[in-house]
Amino acid sequence: MATGFFDGLEPVRFVGPDAKDPYGYRFYDKDRVVLGKRMEDHLRLAICYWHSFCWPGGDPFGGDTFQRKWMAAGDPMEQARLKADVAFEMFQLLDMPFFTFHDRDIAPEGATLAESNANVNAIADIFEKKMAETGVKLLWGTANLFSNRRFMSGAATNPDPEIFAYSAAQVKNAMDVTKRLGGANYVLWGGREGYETLLNTDLKRELDQLGRFLSMVVEYKHKTGFKGTILIEPKPQEPTKHQYDYDVATVFGFLKAYGLENEVKVNIEQGHAILAGHSFEHELALANALGIFGSVDMNRNDYQSGWDTDQFAMNVPELALAYYEILKGGGFTTGGTNFDSKIRRQSIDAADLIQGHIGSADAIARGLLAAAAMIEDGRLGGFVEDRYAGWSKPENAAILKGDVSLEALADRVHATDLEPQPKSGRQEYLESLVNLFV
Amino acid sequence: MATGFFDGLEPVRFVGPDAKDPYGYRFYDKDRVVLGKRMEDHLRLAICYWHSFCWPGGDPFGGDTFQRKWMAAGDPMEQARLKADVAFEMFQLLDMPFFTFHDRDIAPEGATLAESNANVNAIADIFEKKMAETGVKLLWGTANLFSNRRFMSGAATNPDPEIFAYSAAQVKNAMDVTKRLGGANYVLWGGREGYETLLNTDLKRELDQLGRFLSMVVEYKHKTGFKGTILIEPKPQEPTKHQYDYDVATVFGFLKAYGLENEVKVNIEQGHAILAGHSFEHELALANALGIFGSVDMNRNDYQSGWDTDQFAMNVPELALAYYEILKGGGFTTGGTNFDSKIRRQSIDAADLIQGHIGSADAIARGLLAAAAMIEDGRLGGFVEDRYAGWSKPENAAILKGDVSLEALADRVHATDLEPQPKSGRQEYLESLVNLFV
Amino acid sequence: MATGFFDGLEPVRFVGPDAKDPYGYRFYDKDRVVLGKRMEDHLRLAICYWHSFCWPGGDPFGGDTFQRKWMAAGDPMEQARLKADVAFEMFQLLDMPFFTFHDRDIAPEGATLAESNANVNAIADIFEKKMAETGVKLLWGTANLFSNRRFMSGAATNPDPEIFAYSAAQVKNAMDVTKRLGGANYVLWGGREGYETLLNTDLKRELDQLGRFLSMVVEYKHKTGFKGTILIEPKPQEPTKHQYDYDVATVFGFLKAYGLENEVKVNIEQGHAILAGHSFEHELALANALGIFGSVDMNRNDYQSGWDTDQFAMNVPELALAYYEILKGGGFTTGGTNFDSKIRRQSIDAADLIQGHIGSADAIARGLLAAAAMIEDGRLGGFVEDRYAGWSKPENAAILKGDVSLEALADRVHATDLEPQPKSGRQEYLESLVNLFV
Amino acid sequence: MATGFFDGLEPVRFVGPDAKDPYGYRFYDKDRVVLGKRMEDHLRLAICYWHSFCWPGGDPFGGDTFQRKWMAAGDPMEQARLKADVAFEMFQLLDMPFFTFHDRDIAPEGATLAESNANVNAIADIFEKKMAETGVKLLWGTANLFSNRRFMSGAATNPDPEIFAYSAAQVKNAMDVTKRLGGANYVLWGGREGYETLLNTDLKRELDQLGRFLSMVVEYKHKTGFKGTILIEPKPQEPTKHQYDYDVATVFGFLKAYGLENEVKVNIEQGHAILAGHSFEHELALANALGIFGSVDMNRNDYQSGWDTDQFAMNVPELALAYYEILKGGGFTTGGTNFDSKIRRQSIDAADLIQGHIGSADAIARGLLAAAAMIEDGRLGGFVEDRYAGWSKPENAAILKGDVSLEALADRVHATDLEPQPKSGRQEYLESLVNLFV
Repeated sequence: MATGFFDGLEPVRFVGPDAKDPYGYRFYDKDRVVLGKRMEDHLRLAICYWHSFCWPGGDPFGGDTFQRKWMAAGDPMEQARLKADVAFEMFQLLDMPFFTFHDRDIAPEGATLAESNANVNAIADIFEKKMAETGVKLLWGTANLFSNRRFMSGAATNPDPEIFAYSAAQVKNAMDVTKRLGGANYVLWGGREGYETLLNTDLKRELDQLGRFLSMVVEYKHKTGFKGTILIEPKPQEPTKHQYDYDVATVFGFLKAYGLENEVKVNIEQGHAILAGHSFEHELALANALGIFGSVDMNRNDYQSGWDTDQFAMNVPELALAYYEILKGGGFTTGGTNFDSKIRRQSIDAADLIQGHIGSADAIARGLLAAAAMIEDGRLGGFVEDRYAGWSKPENAAILKGDVSLEALADRVHATDLEPQPKSGRQEYLESLVNLFV
Repeated sequence: MATGFFDGLEPVRFVGPDAKDPYGYRFYDKDRVVLGKRMEDHLRLAICYWHSFCWPGGDPFGGDTFQRKWMAAGDPMEQARLKADVAFEMFQLLDMPFFTFHDRDIAPEGATLAESNANVNAIADIFEKKMAETGVKLLWGTANLFSNRRFMSGAATNPDPEIFAYSAAQVKNAMDVTKRLGGANYVLWGGREGYETLLNTDLKRELDQLGRFLSMVVEYKHKTGFKGTILIEPKPQEPTKHQYDYDVATVFGFLKAYGLENEVKVNIEQGHAILAGHSFEHELALANALGIFGSVDMNRNDYQSGWDTDQFAMNVPELALAYYEILKGGGFTTGGTNFDSKIRRQSIDAADLIQGHIGSADAIARGLLAAAAMIEDGRLGGFVEDRYAGWSKPENAAILKGDVSLEALADRVHATDLEPQPKSGRQEYLESLVNLFV
Repeated sequence: MATGFFDGLEPVRFVGPDAKDPYGYRFYDKDRVVLGKRMEDHLRLAICYWHSFCWPGGDPFGGDTFQRKWMAAGDPMEQARLKADVAFEMFQLLDMPFFTFHDRDIAPEGATLAESNANVNAIADIFEKKMAETGVKLLWGTANLFSNRRFMSGAATNPDPEIFAYSAAQVKNAMDVTKRLGGANYVLWGGREGYETLLNTDLKRELDQLGRFLSMVVEYKHKTGFKGTILIEPKPQEPTKHQYDYDVATVFGFLKAYGLENEVKVNIEQGHAILAGHSFEHELALANALGIFGSVDMNRNDYQSGWDTDQFAMNVPELALAYYEILKGGGFTTGGTNFDSKIRRQSIDAADLIQGHIGSADAIARGLLAAAAMIEDGRLGGFVEDRYAGWSKPENAAILKGDVSLEALADRVHATDLEPQPKSGRQEYLESLVNLFV
Repeated sequence: MATGFFDGLEPVRFVGPDAKDPYGYRFYDKDRVVLGKRMEDHLRLAICYWHSFCWPGGDPFGGDTFQRKWMAAGDPMEQARLKADVAFEMFQLLDMPFFTFHDRDIAPEGATLAESNANVNAIADIFEKKMAETGVKLLWGTANLFSNRRFMSGAATNPDPEIFAYSAAQVKNAMDVTKRLGGANYVLWGGREGYETLLNTDLKRELDQLGRFLSMVVEYKHKTGFKGTILIEPKPQEPTKHQYDYDVATVFGFLKAYGLENEVKVNIEQGHAILAGHSFEHELALANALGIFGSVDMNRNDYQSGWDTDQFAMNVPELALAYYEILKGGGFTTGGTNFDSKIRRQSIDAADLIQGHIGSADAIARGLLAAAAMIEDGRLGGFVEDRYAGWSKPENAAILKGDVSLEALADRVHATDLEPQPKSGRQEYLESLVNLFV
């Protein structure tokens, strides 16, 4: 291709399950119809800009390993254009339908916010043209309110209202760009919206600031006619010691407190779920139960590491359970599956970047197929329905309707000296059943 | 004393900070006035029945080590009466103002719920008399909805509505007893209100069941004129893999979803905070910020153990931070400091049981004194106020009032090319300041 | 069958991968030859006595849920015989080649150790007969030195030498029984060999006690001519706060310190690896690297629970990585795959007990098949060999032989201004490669 | 001072416990005699170069916040000299006796290793002069074998022997510099000596490489006559997924395997202990028990964060337990207390850097004083001695000497139907006792 970065790498296409080499999709077959919908439309896979094109391979103990040419010294806008070229080459090489980005991923920061915005908008012009040419779409955009030192004590939750204002101005531009590019969603991840120590923090005040900020975003969305979904991405900590958007349940309470539960949904990340002490499927199931499921940042956290490892998801049984929850909830609407995944810092070749996406897309596709098979089989779902069948009886349905008091239930129990007997939860059977499909 | 269990142990009284032996209160001086209130009235210390008198010293890998005489074979009600005698002897030995219990702690389960209730009520008669004699009060009562096998798949969240009904009937009696004994609060801890596997669970349905159950409890409280506070005690897991009342933020969202946020507060446990990935002071501060702080289950979780270790709280600097949050929120109203703490299973002597309470009461008292000193000093609080001072300016206060839009803020930023500069958070200074007082 | 416990359950046999019901082995095909050996001989599956027949379904917050008839009141030896009958019925129902037990699992404790030993020996007589009849073999025996209160402060590491002596006497009998029954190994798990607090512990002394105890066991093994392997089972904690046999690396250092590294090997448990902060495959690989790999306690720890959950292993990709390490090390000799797995406490039916073993045996078989395929394919192993190929050059091989000094290497570097270039570690490629086989 | 960096900050000196401001030592009184030795000589406090002068305040999600002038663009050696000036100003401002550094902390990397070494040596010339002028001494030096991309797959454990050679050459120079500056120790921290995935790793081979490397270091030490101690610093993970020097027990096993247990000791870090699942005092006690205790990297890990937070140690009771173990083992010989602690990235002022060291030095001093008081009091130590007193009886001492067999002990037990009774471990008493002194 034109940039030469992927020289020697063939376009990645469906090769079927019998292929003996992992370069090629063995299961990700975009046109295959699953539960009445094309696989591509089910999964809505997106490549993220930050991990793939912006992260240089550094970690807290070591510098860059990747040394991409667009990260070298040079005119920053020139480099941003080269990066955009490489990005779209990769989208096409992998035949992926979507991408995602932060404003600062795509263009350099200028001397003022106006200059920074102009940089972002200039690259967005290029994106607009490339998207039209290639058919690649934007799953979501977002603003980076965490890297610059001005955000060190928060963006919306900063003790300094000037930084709140600055953040608002930056988000406005990111939302404008996202709308212009037809983004299906707009995401807020509050990496600095938390605290390092309670000793210098007024929790109540910061929550109110965050609530107000989010309300302003929602108001602006409606004013501009942006049709996408506003998404919050929960994470318990890192970089801050404690982040306000800890997990799905915390975000739900926050939305309820500020009357935003019908306006905002969640973008759930596997790695963030793990760091918060939950399984990924828990967070998905809970978001569905609470009516705020939106989208997925797909990756895998190393179970032995206490930080966000953002590895490519590769464990098919785990992915099957995740898509089972997603499909049970009706699947994605505006959301999708964003590869919030990065190659390891020792994986320094362009081929590694491609292979990570292939391997994970395939594992995801297998997860989806297994989940669909579990739904079609029906035994899992049927077991659950049977388990709660007693609640359909009129006298029990009345309890949930609020027609029965504590005393009335007590009377019912004592009238017959009721002694209910436990029934097996059959977990091992259900786990064995799942293994029929993965 | 009459039971002989504490033979050889002297009544524990204030001996002053210079005492050279840890048997005696060096800092817990109940009549000492701190910030205008007696220390006893600040702390409202309570001894719990379950750890002190019911737990036999067993763990998942080993049987009983304590071999208390009231746990030996014999007539269960006779043993329950002996246990009550020992309990009140201990309350007086330690000169503690409150106690707490589960229904099943104080009396044996009968063949039917009616019989079980009768057993509970019979012991409550004894309590009533002993409380009048000794002046010891009830901080709170609760129902054990987790030990019996009927609750293995939940109480209020059980798939079987009969178990929901049974639970309601049991709670009704526990609430009646708590009211009769003048309990200052009634607590619900949902040890089985969660799931072991999502594969057999309907999350939405179980949350609705739990919401309905709690509403029934609140309705019954008002109907009976019980003046105490209804408290939920968050815990993330153990014994279940995932408990619905995960942490303070989760409980808040749950209360909001069912319209109970003005009716129910939280009873926060140090160990549960740790298991949920939070510091104790975080949970306290958050509950205050959300307006749902109620009471405290005081203990300490071993930082290297992944289960609920319920050790006696002994680390003064940590306790100082906890009471600093409690005092900043106005202190306890109906709530108090319940020793949800157990001696180690190798601490098999009666003296160990007493020493655990002495040592922890003293550490708690030191924590309170340090917290009060921090408040009186004022530098910590003043630092925080100064940090957010910018929000008092009219143009910034207007933001939080909702009078300013995203676009208006963007205009403000661009008008002056605003570039706000970060200010030091001074964490090390604040931590050093705290160390002046502990 | 005679006891009636498994009434209604059919013998479990190989039914092939296309079976639509999880009752039956779809992949565990004992006679299938894998890498030149029968699958049964590769895996050497064993059913454990404690989880399957002794655990009543209790946990720290709740009582028994299983209510097996052999756990009911009655003559303890009568019940032990019934339990033995049920156990052998299950071994045959599942067609498993091995079993494992603690002395206290099989027979009740008596008034003296002599009586306890007599009880054990009486049941061993029964075992002997049943083993001859059924062909079921003993993978290993062990002594329970943790449940009785006398061991609360340790067995071999107890501050009281009388408890050390008692433990020695009990182990002697357990070794005798194991030898008599043709056990392939003898295991020591030191659940109480650790400390609850350093404040009352002399670490050095306790390590010496443990070293001496283990030496006595080895000496006795040789004296009696027992041909099995002595195995230590590492675990970091639980029930104790800190256990001396923390993990494989710790055990290795301990064995080296007491000169036992050629006499004792490790029995590695998945759940214990996880609790110690390692992956299962790490512990297996390390044991092979250190030359002390012995056997496996197979289960799965819930990744979100901080205690030993001992679930049935069901995740095939994880099992594939485990058996890949085992096969690379040459596979089992005297060791095997012991199901140290328990059904959930809500799985109260006999069918659950069977289904757990079926589902896990099948997942294990799939893991073995995938591992074998990875080895036969050769690309994974070849990649690793190539990666270290530079060390075969004579000048580099000389380094490891000890023939080159720090200064000589420095000279070599400076002579050519050596600047070695990093090469990709290709993790994503390797993970994708693994996914070809699982 | 000359550089102006600390303008406005007064020299920090002992002001006594009644001081009301945290700027000044309230407890760190260097000349105070504790257990017969000056406090300065007990603690041997050292300021580290990397956190204080090299870390720019970045984290994985955000850039530099500190913007120190010596980190700005400019001639790197000029900046290195400015940094050295600031460093020694700080050593004197704080009146600290020692410092520590990595080679790359003090001087920039050149185009070749020879050039890099020359840079290091040039700064060492400056150090030599400044040390003579100020009396500040070097606690230890070390080589940075982790930041440059060449080390991404390890230094001594790299699959590429050229990187092993390069590392050897770099370490040689770092050892030479350390010797020249009179360093009391030389440290090796293997941040990249581990693996990211087992799939590309030959564990056995890498351990052998590491063993050989360490042996070369020891040989070179003896050849050059360096009198300092060679120290390994254990850490379980981060940046690598799994580091070979996991914890003290693992390092001990490694040293035994390569015959280095009498040549190399450990430098124990609080944060690394926590990440490995241990308490700090455990690692200290174990190192003493195994005879390999060397030195301490003092800091504090946030208990809720799963990465290395390197905060300033401020919790006095925890520090008291740490120094209690250190003093029981005889205290430091060549080792000392290195502040491996960094101010938070929001603490951007020079005053924060000073305050962090003051606050922590004071907390450490209080920890030492408490530990000394515990030792002088004698009750803690006496309790432990009494607990094991039974082992002094001749028949029990004989067991540890190896004069008694398993059978002989069994005979002893059966002869008297021995039934040893458990004794209380009295943990709550001991914890209360500790609280008399902190």
